[in-house]
Amino acid sequence: MSIVGKNYIKGKRSGQSNQTLTSYDAHSGEALPFSFYQATESEANQACDGAQSAFAEYRLTSPEQRAEFLETIADELDAFGDDFIQLVMRETALPQGRIVGERARTSGQMRLFATVLRRGDYLGARIDCALPKRKPLPRPDLRQVRMGVGPVAVFGASNFPLAFSTAGGDTASALAAGCTVVMKAHSGHMATAEYVADAILRAADKCGMPAGVFNMIYGQDIGAVVVKHPAIQAVGFTGSLKGGRAICDMAAARPHPIPVFAEMSSINPVILLPQALIQRGEQIAGELTDSVTAGCGQFCTNPGMIIGIRSVAFSAFMQTLKDRIDASPPQTMLNRGTLASYEKGLSALRQHDGVIQLAGKEQNGKQASPQLFQAEAQLLIEGDALLQEEVFGPVTVVIEVQDAEQLLQTLRGLRGQLTATLIAEPEDLQQFSTLVPVLEQKAGRLLLNGYPTGVEVCDAMVHGGPYPATSDSRGSSVGTLAIDRYLRPVCYQNYPQHLLPEALQDGNPLGIMRLVNGVYTCDQLQEIQHETQY
Amino acid sequence: MSIVGKNYIKGKRSGQSNQTLTSYDAHSGEALPFSFYQATESEANQACDGAQSAFAEYRLTSPEQRAEFLETIADELDAFGDDFIQLVMRETALPQGRIVGERARTSGQMRLFATVLRRGDYLGARIDCALPKRKPLPRPDLRQVRMGVGPVAVFGASNFPLAFSTAGGDTASALAAGCTVVMKAHSGHMATAEYVADAILRAADKCGMPAGVFNMIYGQDIGAVVVKHPAIQAVGFTGSLKGGRAICDMAAARPHPIPVFAEMSSINPVILLPQALIQRGEQIAGELTDSVTAGCGQFCTNPGMIIGIRSVAFSAFMQTLKDRIDASPPQTMLNRGTLASYEKGLSALRQHDGVIQLAGKEQNGKQASPQLFQAEAQLLIEGDALLQEEVFGPVTVVIEVQDAEQLLQTLRGLRGQLTATLIAEPEDLQQFSTLVPVLEQKAGRLLLNGYPTGVEVCDAMVHGGPYPATSDSRGSSVGTLAIDRYLRPVCYQNYPQHLLPEALQDGNPLGIMRLVNGVYTCDQLQEIQHETQY
Repeated sequence: MSIVGKNYIKGKRSGQSNQTLTSYDAHSGEALPFSFYQATESEANQACDGAQSAFAEYRLTSPEQRAEFLETIADELDAFGDDFIQLVMRETALPQGRIVGERARTSGQMRLFATVLRRGDYLGARIDCALPKRKPLPRPDLRQVRMGVGPVAVFGASNFPLAFSTAGGDTASALAAGCTVVMKAHSGHMATAEYVADAILRAADKCGMPAGVFNMIYGQDIGAVVVKHPAIQAVGFTGSLKGGRAICDMAAARPHPIPVFAEMSSINPVILLPQALIQRGEQIAGELTDSVTAGCGQFCTNPGMIIGIRSVAFSAFMQTLKDRIDASPPQTMLNRGTLASYEKGLSALRQHDGVIQLAGKEQNGKQASPQLFQAEAQLLIEGDALLQEEVFGPVTVVIEVQDAEQLLQTLRGLRGQLTATLIAEPEDLQQFSTLVPVLEQKAGRLLLNGYPTGVEVCDAMVHGGPYPATSDSRGSSVGTLAIDRYLRPVCYQNYPQHLLPEALQDGNPLGIMRLVNGVYTCDQLQEIQHETQY
Repeated sequence: MSIVGKNYIKGKRSGQSNQTLTSYDAHSGEALPFSFYQATESEANQACDGAQSAFAEYRLTSPEQRAEFLETIADELDAFGDDFIQLVMRETALPQGRIVGERARTSGQMRLFATVLRRGDYLGARIDCALPKRKPLPRPDLRQVRMGVGPVAVFGASNFPLAFSTAGGDTASALAAGCTVVMKAHSGHMATAEYVADAILRAADKCGMPAGVFNMIYGQDIGAVVVKHPAIQAVGFTGSLKGGRAICDMAAARPHPIPVFAEMSSINPVILLPQALIQRGEQIAGELTDSVTAGCGQFCTNPGMIIGIRSVAFSAFMQTLKDRIDASPPQTMLNRGTLASYEKGLSALRQHDGVIQLAGKEQNGKQASPQLFQAEAQLLIEGDALLQEEVFGPVTVVIEVQDAEQLLQTLRGLRGQLTATLIAEPEDLQQFSTLVPVLEQKAGRLLLNGYPTGVEVCDAMVHGGPYPATSDSRGSSVGTLAIDRYLRPVCYQNYPQHLLPEALQDGNPLGIMRLVNGVYTCDQLQEIQHETQY
């Protein structure tokens, strides 16, 4: 495939700017032989206008049509040849197995949303039949269904060039919801983004979707134009706290504010309870090292904090962890910027008075060495800001608390998290069961005897959590719940059958479950149940 | 009942300020013989702290316990004697029948949320069982449930002293969600608020709910302290666009931003289609006059704009409407401030070049006279701001468009609305069916041959809509969907039965519907379906 490098606007390619951008080989740092056209402000606006005009048509597609569209995108992704895998490897330094797996996750995600579209629960169909004889006032016929909010702006993540990027969860959930998309391609993998955008456009073409159902622009400092464009009705973002918060602030300051779901920053505390440490401390140290160093620590759910109660077993665990971290080889990060951020984060930890370094090779060269720090518990209790900042990379901070009471205080001092993990034996859970309500208020996902890296794409997953893990704890960017972020309810009062969405028609042509007069049912409405004007 | 006038803080009364506030007889303007203590900043913070400490306990109550709490509140409201009705009449000038009806709506709303708690769908329970043998990686056991976000700040509306105020829909949905509440009493009906707060506290006491489950403060310019308090996790507001937007901006600027559902401003367009005008123009004019003047026009869903296509029938309709509006008597508004705002709004319309007054008695004295204006269609198409501003009171603006094409343009120019109404005959609906997709994007509720005043409290209702109707089109402040605003999902990975919320336990002790491995069922989990560690 040849890389054109132009912006995707309403089904056409556009490169108006003289300024071009370069993609780099993540290992060597050398420029790749592609040029990408920085989107002009005019092009960014055109992309939003394209999404807006396509929305008028796309919102009227049936759930089945959208399901087929998502499945066709999935097929296109799965059909990529080895050239694609090689390209992603060059742009991101991620290993082949990871990319093949992530591609499967990305196409699987598209297919999962297709099943949601056919299941129809996302529609939230509710019918309250007319009660014409009710006193003192009759009740009209009222029917509610959820529909797409409008064009959605998506900012992909560097660390998942497929699953959280061009055709990632935000795009999949927005397209499933009936929303059109304006994607800002991540500058770390622009060639990958182009491959994937082409796949989406081929699928759109095959399925007869309107031009502009998916738009993508390249560029630096151009996202703000999209966030501020009046056509854009919601934003999905995965990235840094600084970047995410800036987008939230922009969206809130619009003449017409819009919701933003930004997944931003989490240190994913892992709490090691006493009996577990006694029984399998060495094993835990090994597993934790694997989780901390997996993918060079470049996961939103990387365990950045380990908390345990002072004991012989915890000391032994720390010693093993130190040895493991020291023995872990350096890895190449996604790009130079990520490495620079990692080094900056390490440097800040080293300069912090209450923090000491326990293990890790000196950080130099082009790769990232895993690092281990220890911080005083009091820092967390007092809400020390630095300690709660995510350092993106293979590093974790150990905190040793005095006792169960200080453990509770420490957890209360935590900011919002994507995950919180307990490593525990059954007797620990008896003794420490009061931790669970505290963790419920801190995190979107609570794990027991697992490690937070590895996020299943399914109905029950929550990849979200209180601020600053995300900008809105009510959402999730992974799993089928992600579609809720882009839906709004509309109620029809006394509408005739032919003007109602299929989801609300008496005959239930979609065959979906609906809440009818307070009871969930897949049945058709009996004629006797309602009276409407026509 | 004697009015104490002190703030409600964690189950106690507090009046630290020297500054007191007065409630007025809405008819005479005379001060009522009660004093209310302006909450100090310290008291406002204490109320939030009280809600926070109570949340730790209240969030752990079962759905059944909360259902009984809401039903007890309902019983307390229904048990109010005639002294209460008389008091509300004095404070708001609303007629007896309206207050009796609104009280029934308010207690009915509490009971409806009790049924939601028992139905359990609000929990959004989802279970994906472990797949230990899945390749390439096993799937852990994942279970999701929704829980209250935390303490909620509620700002009640002047126009519904019961149904949208102290024990109104925001409070009911927050308490149902397991959230504690800090209420800012509306200055227009502080004595009414005290009666209702007492009823909630009696119910809390009877049901053994923690002190601080419901807190209420009196005061001017004190709401900002509550919105900015770190314990507060969400805001419910009903009121003006200016006030609502200020709260949204404050909430977005917090170190930890929180979601706000503000119901603010809507002109609720009513579109009169040709055949309906020919067949029943005179009847429509009468019905519309009733809707415009009902409750002195003090409804969020008051029809503030009437749009029709130029025709003999539309001219005849306008003449009848003029006569009806001219014949409508003045009414007393909720308070002096509301009357002043109404007069200011009328004055702005009169001064607008593109607007002419068609009917209405000269506005003077202590009452509000219904008024009718006409505006040029072009103003709406060009997005004239004044024309889209809600004038709270018995006034409406007629717009005559040239043809079907201009009608569509006019509707596209509308800002977000709570409601949009078509008055139509079947042949109109055939001809104008393309209006529906436009209206779907503009409003939360679409009516046919009804009038927007009168908002049913039920499962299918949407009282929401795109900005500026509300601050987030994804929510509703009326009906059972309102609870969604205050819930966040939490996922448990490999948790043992005894640490899972009842909603997620294998035996399904709540007997609720759950999404289990992609299928909705009320069944218990078969042991064979899953493997967990303990």
